[in-house]
Amino acid sequence: MDQDRIVAEAATIDGDLAARVGFLLELDRLKTVLRRSRLVDGSRLENTAEHSWHLAMFAVVLAPYAPEGADVPRAIEMLLVHDIVEIDAGDTYIYDQAGAADKEERENVAARRLFGLLPDGEGDRLEELWREYEARETPTARFAYGIDRLQPSLLNAASGGVSWLEHGIRHSQPVAINQPIVETSPLLWDLARRLFDVAADEGLLIDDRASDR
Amino acid sequence: MDQDRIVAEAATIDGDLAARVGFLLELDRLKTVLRRSRLVDGSRLENTAEHSWHLAMFAVVLAPYAPEGADVPRAIEMLLVHDIVEIDAGDTYIYDQAGAADKEERENVAARRLFGLLPDGEGDRLEELWREYEARETPTARFAYGIDRLQPSLLNAASGGVSWLEHGIRHSQPVAINQPIVETSPLLWDLARRLFDVAADEGLLIDDRASDR
Repeated sequence: MDQDRIVAEAATIDGDLAARVGFLLELDRLKTVLRRSRLVDGSRLENTAEHSWHLAMFAVVLAPYAPEGADVPRAIEMLLVHDIVEIDAGDTYIYDQAGAADKEERENVAARRLFGLLPDGEGDRLEELWREYEARETPTARFAYGIDRLQPSLLNAASGGVSWLEHGIRHSQPVAINQPIVETSPLLWDLARRLFDVAADEGLLIDDRASDR
Repeated sequence: MDQDRIVAEAATIDGDLAARVGFLLELDRLKTVLRRSRLVDGSRLENTAEHSWHLAMFAVVLAPYAPEGADVPRAIEMLLVHDIVEIDAGDTYIYDQAGAADKEERENVAARRLFGLLPDGEGDRLEELWREYEARETPTARFAYGIDRLQPSLLNAASGGVSWLEHGIRHSQPVAINQPIVETSPLLWDLARRLFDVAADEGLLIDDRASDR
């Protein structure tokens, strides 16, 4: 038995059910997309599916730090959905400028195929959630985006900065790239800034702070 | 830098924040708890963190099949939280009767430690969500539990039944154990039953159907 056979069995029961089950089986592939962050114990790279779970738990637990007007249950759903396009488009490293150039086009094609597996209304709804995340305009999307920046910062710091060291990252880089955390919560940004400073003090980030001043 | 240093830095900003960040870093360990199901591509065992993400997406996408009275956003949060105790208690295989004997006690101890990392009100809230899941009495918990039974059935079927074959599972076993899916949705139970039949036809489950009749 394989994925297609399961969808075919579901289709003999109900077409709507078959489309949803087909999409859910396809989602399994997100577990094999690897990111650049390591687990806290340093044992291996994080994959995008478990990353998405962790982000959703950040939204649950950091709800008191959400910006005014953010809809927390919607942010949770947004974070569950926001990286699904990586099944086709892959993970683009945040410091990879070449990858960033065609990221949007690759992800648009992926969104069309993946959300297109669902019945129309449902596919449109999830694609809209993903687009709201990408636009980062609503308080809900700003909360979700800040969390998506904070979690890798915490993971990189807690795993001894291995990912920063491997890629030769300078202190000014995470400071610039994670700045949007301040729009989620000045308190969370204060924490992130301190961790980048400690990391530079400990040699986990290349210390270019003198040139910043 | 390690997990403790991050929590100490957070504590200089705010005690509540430090407790929440400490809990979120501890959650990272759920990514290293392995289950018995394989990924759809058969490449490796599934871990509990990515499993929890997948279940939450099942709740998002199968919402139209939820029982009357189920609160879908609450079911999503419940599924994100329901396996956190496995960080300390490990995953207990559903067909493991010896493991089942002390599962409750092991999980209660785990819940006290893990949810106890959070500020009181928040820890109590998440522990209550977990207990509601375990009791399976509310429509929300019945929806969540049915999903937690359906997803491994789909994964085992889609990955060619490797996990069933490895453990010598008989057709009557998933039929008995997954019966609660019917309380989520008769349609979803119909699908699961068909897959168990196909699996027995294909030799992925030991065929003991004659003795059932």
